[in-house]
Amino acid sequence: MTLPYNFSPGPAMLPPEVLQQIRDDLPEWKWKGVGQGASIMEVSHRGKAFEALIAEAEQDLRDLLAIPQNYRVLFMQGGAWGQFAMVPMNLLRAGETADYLVSGGWSKSAFEEAQKFGSTHLIASGESGGYKQIPNQRDWTRSASPSYTYVCSNETVYGNEIHHLPTGLNSPLIVDASSHFLSRPMDVSACGLIYAGAQKNVGPAGVTMVIVRDDLLDRAPNSIASVFHYKHMAANKSLFNTPPVFAIYVTALTLKWIKAQGGLAEMERRATARSSMLYDAIDTSALFTAPVSKADRSRMNVVFDSGNVETDAKFVAFCEVRGLMSLKGHRVRGGMRASIYNAMPIAGVEALVAAMREFEASF
Amino acid sequence: MTLPYNFSPGPAMLPPEVLQQIRDDLPEWKWKGVGQGASIMEVSHRGKAFEALIAEAEQDLRDLLAIPQNYRVLFMQGGAWGQFAMVPMNLLRAGETADYLVSGGWSKSAFEEAQKFGSTHLIASGESGGYKQIPNQRDWTRSASPSYTYVCSNETVYGNEIHHLPTGLNSPLIVDASSHFLSRPMDVSACGLIYAGAQKNVGPAGVTMVIVRDDLLDRAPNSIASVFHYKHMAANKSLFNTPPVFAIYVTALTLKWIKAQGGLAEMERRATARSSMLYDAIDTSALFTAPVSKADRSRMNVVFDSGNVETDAKFVAFCEVRGLMSLKGHRVRGGMRASIYNAMPIAGVEALVAAMREFEASF
Repeated sequence: MTLPYNFSPGPAMLPPEVLQQIRDDLPEWKWKGVGQGASIMEVSHRGKAFEALIAEAEQDLRDLLAIPQNYRVLFMQGGAWGQFAMVPMNLLRAGETADYLVSGGWSKSAFEEAQKFGSTHLIASGESGGYKQIPNQRDWTRSASPSYTYVCSNETVYGNEIHHLPTGLNSPLIVDASSHFLSRPMDVSACGLIYAGAQKNVGPAGVTMVIVRDDLLDRAPNSIASVFHYKHMAANKSLFNTPPVFAIYVTALTLKWIKAQGGLAEMERRATARSSMLYDAIDTSALFTAPVSKADRSRMNVVFDSGNVETDAKFVAFCEVRGLMSLKGHRVRGGMRASIYNAMPIAGVEALVAAMREFEASF
Repeated sequence: MTLPYNFSPGPAMLPPEVLQQIRDDLPEWKWKGVGQGASIMEVSHRGKAFEALIAEAEQDLRDLLAIPQNYRVLFMQGGAWGQFAMVPMNLLRAGETADYLVSGGWSKSAFEEAQKFGSTHLIASGESGGYKQIPNQRDWTRSASPSYTYVCSNETVYGNEIHHLPTGLNSPLIVDASSHFLSRPMDVSACGLIYAGAQKNVGPAGVTMVIVRDDLLDRAPNSIASVFHYKHMAANKSLFNTPPVFAIYVTALTLKWIKAQGGLAEMERRATARSSMLYDAIDTSALFTAPVSKADRSRMNVVFDSGNVETDAKFVAFCEVRGLMSLKGHRVRGGMRASIYNAMPIAGVEALVAAMREFEASF
């Protein structure tokens, strides 16, 4: 069965092999070939099979990202908005200030949310320039001794990406990597904490991975809620309370798929191939332009437009009848956005480029 | 394909028709018979089909429970432990005290967690009696003017259930109904807020339903995190951030199943039939006893034991080879626990009773 190409920003495409495995595991989940007497949704999260699954998912994630031993991996609920709160709840100590870089809508929301929990400082913002450029580290105004420095390394709405994480900071770097997580290798040791919702490159909505350096676990006061407490979740290997079992299971399958495809080097090669093809087509188009400066363009979320709202809408409709879905840009940005995550085959981008050429010719 | 009977306390059995539908909806989700071009895990939560699904799920829940118009329905993440925090965060105003009834391990945890957020008062506890009885409302020592009164209406670990909600309270009643939600009708208008994780009677782990009277939405200060703010979630129809799409989808299917089976009156009839059969077998057994007093016994979680740890372990193993799974009691309680939620057919209980008789005869 051939399905359309889905350019949704997230929840997003999953590999067909993963969907097939989920189907094969219904009504009975098979773990290592052994039927578990129930579907993955019905087994105990404290049973041997699920405990083995979540341990293996963690190990696969550790292998893919080469996560050092002094980092813990947590599987949590609540998505990025949950982390917007949990990061300052856990890491922003009384009397300290947290530094935030605003490079798009998500980091702006994280910055605003953090203000509920303590003192924050804006080190730079790309807002006045429409987030077409990520403020250069040379131009940041940093606090003297921040509690941490927060960035969003890929902004889905405006389509920019931090291709090289900041270095030489005087505080732990916190990275919201949600929308390009596992699309390329990443130097975990340069970060204090990395988090990512699964629903872009790694799985369905409902689970958020948090990778945290263990010396940071002691920062949180015991007065914060147990379920939002990183140390508490780490001590219980993410099984403090009932976890989102199915979302973790699909994530585990997708991690295996990424490994089988060749790991993060191969994911990066594909991401570069997909995004280069698409940006090249836009840059050589007489009709469409990509607003983000070349150095900061996202390889995951390719934002472009014709400069005319009606033409944009026509193009989105033109694509839909050709099986190219969810290309409409975010409501605050307009235009088009092609989200091309790990599971998007290059053929999907080829089909989109062909549709662009056909649309231009008919225009 | 015949699978074993799964007596797991949650995640728990789902109806076979629901599992079949999930399988049929892979790789392409069909909404009202129309293929959506992607699986339910890949579609946008802001697309028309998913928005229709979540609206219909809410309406089905409203129909089943006869939820009055002045109550809002939220689909949230974080499970009961999330609500242990969110209830006081949202509802316990500065200078006020919240009353808690402790009738088992879950309400005890909720009570302890709430102390992080404000002033709390214990109105009664069944702990010294091993939670075999639920403290009678006549014996409660209530605050003069509590912010709210909190109860857990079914305690899975100890197997007790509040069969008649307290009345005549001078404050909104907050009910953790997680483990018997939708197993019987419930007078929503007698409550200020009801919440329930789906993973017992209504779906998989990963989504928590909150039913809240709308005058309570204004209690929370704007300083609490947006994603934990009931009013904020209500204003956005649970689509403030990316929801746990798949868990909501399975819950929606299960709500339809409950309706098709005859609604909550039929669920209650079945729950009574299952639990009566099992308690009768225990009460007439020479080997097993059920410790909870008859008036307070749960129809969902039937706790029993032989009084001998080794005999209990033998019986659990005896059942497992007969396809009767997950009967081991909670680690703090020991013995056996048969969780018999909506999806458990009476044949499962018959098989368990037969196994008890066979085990007793061979003993």
